[in-house]
Amino acid sequence: MTHLYASTETEIKAQFYDLDPMDIVWHGNYARYFELARCDLLDTIDYSYRGMKESGYAWPIVDMRIRYIKPVIFGQEIIVKADLIEYEFRLKIAYTIFDKKTGHRICKAHTEQVAVDLKTQEMQYASPPILAKKLGIEL
Amino acid sequence: MTHLYASTETEIKAQFYDLDPMDIVWHGNYARYFELARCDLLDTIDYSYRGMKESGYAWPIVDMRIRYIKPVIFGQEIIVKADLIEYEFRLKIAYTIFDKKTGHRICKAHTEQVAVDLKTQEMQYASPPILAKKLGIEL
Amino acid sequence: MTHLYASTETEIKAQFYDLDPMDIVWHGNYARYFELARCDLLDTIDYSYRGMKESGYAWPIVDMRIRYIKPVIFGQEIIVKADLIEYEFRLKIAYTIFDKKTGHRICKAHTEQVAVDLKTQEMQYASPPILAKKLGIEL
Amino acid sequence: MTHLYASTETEIKAQFYDLDPMDIVWHGNYARYFELARCDLLDTIDYSYRGMKESGYAWPIVDMRIRYIKPVIFGQEIIVKADLIEYEFRLKIAYTIFDKKTGHRICKAHTEQVAVDLKTQEMQYASPPILAKKLGIEL
Repeated sequence: MTHLYASTETEIKAQFYDLDPMDIVWHGNYARYFELARCDLLDTIDYSYRGMKESGYAWPIVDMRIRYIKPVIFGQEIIVKADLIEYEFRLKIAYTIFDKKTGHRICKAHTEQVAVDLKTQEMQYASPPILAKKLGIEL
Repeated sequence: MTHLYASTETEIKAQFYDLDPMDIVWHGNYARYFELARCDLLDTIDYSYRGMKESGYAWPIVDMRIRYIKPVIFGQEIIVKADLIEYEFRLKIAYTIFDKKTGHRICKAHTEQVAVDLKTQEMQYASPPILAKKLGIEL
Repeated sequence: MTHLYASTETEIKAQFYDLDPMDIVWHGNYARYFELARCDLLDTIDYSYRGMKESGYAWPIVDMRIRYIKPVIFGQEIIVKADLIEYEFRLKIAYTIFDKKTGHRICKAHTEQVAVDLKTQEMQYASPPILAKKLGIEL
Repeated sequence: MTHLYASTETEIKAQFYDLDPMDIVWHGNYARYFELARCDLLDTIDYSYRGMKESGYAWPIVDMRIRYIKPVIFGQEIIVKADLIEYEFRLKIAYTIFDKKTGHRICKAHTEQVAVDLKTQEMQYASPPILAKKLGIEL
């Protein structure tokens, strides 16, 4: 069973500039939707882009997987649910996109991030203690 | 063993507009690199975006996975190798990005596409014969 | 004096994916902000992307000018004011971006769109009557 | 008469990810085409993004104007001509996009950049001497 350390829901409305010639959101643009949701999630634990920098770490994405179930069309309102499901070695977030009106599942995805020390530029093999602290987990 | 049905190499130079505040290519922009490489690959079998439309099918991406190994920086020249490795049920392409100078591996990824009949909008559970034909495979 | 035919204000929060290596919103991304505001504006007169298509016209942008006054940073909340200021020959919209907190002006811009008949693909030298009608102007 | 201090031509092929639902390159994506051309131009005078940083200045864009004459379609090969036409107070570049095959003019544009001192973050009211030096102009 996957433990859930933090969870948020972000509402997004698909824009014209998101669309491709098939009149659906271009598959590559989902990365922006996930980032928007991820920032909302990391805001709730007070560890977003700025907090990361201040803590001395960058958290580049090392793995992203997206499974597209249904297309998203112009003006469609969607909910991106983001769940922080792993933190010890990597920061792993799972995403599910739902249609706002019908609740139908549109997409499933995840991203994994690892900590990189901003001074040494070295990748950390375990997450630095600041992440657990932000999650309110006693080590 | 994965059979290789078609393969291309595409050279790309990372641009300023690809970068994020960490001074590296933003992870979401790799989708554009893979699409560029995929179009080159599909051009070699004469079945690109226009040919797909003319054949009566759209081929939306239903799965994309990207593993980021090393960052790409401003002006870096990279090679995106695209390999068509499955065609029967889905069109699966594997990608490897190498640094042009050093040959170091930078990223591994794949995409999967399924055929959708443009008239009925129905997803096809097997690839229509046109794909095998374009690949020069006798059915 | 410029007559104001319709006006809206759209709130936007600058995202990480909008940023460039200078840690400010990349200048090219403002086109997305203006489109978001333009869609809100055209929604208020019930003549957005879908309504345009149904009326038999596309309205491509033929002119865009952007004057950047202050940079926009990560997480900054901005207001994009969009004003429809011309309709007879071209659909001209003026934009002003303000900082939400301070009210400081960040950017000024405009776009011009002309009607193209979707059947003949011919550019119209005057706006078709549907636009004035949507604006509630008696011809 | 506008004096021409440097000039380059950059070849670009319109990609699927550049397109909008009208099956033409989305107007906002031209900013990427101009940046690509601008980097080529600045490379010829050895004063690109990295050289600017090393010289102690950033050169943000303060004005961009784009006039769209003809649409660009999937796979179309275009030439972006970039001309450096002003340098004393602002770095002004004019762009013309041509169709590679027919030579027809597709778009006209310009950008203006001003120097910002990276230490003080102050905007410079005249271009620092390094720009004229790079252009081979004796002051």
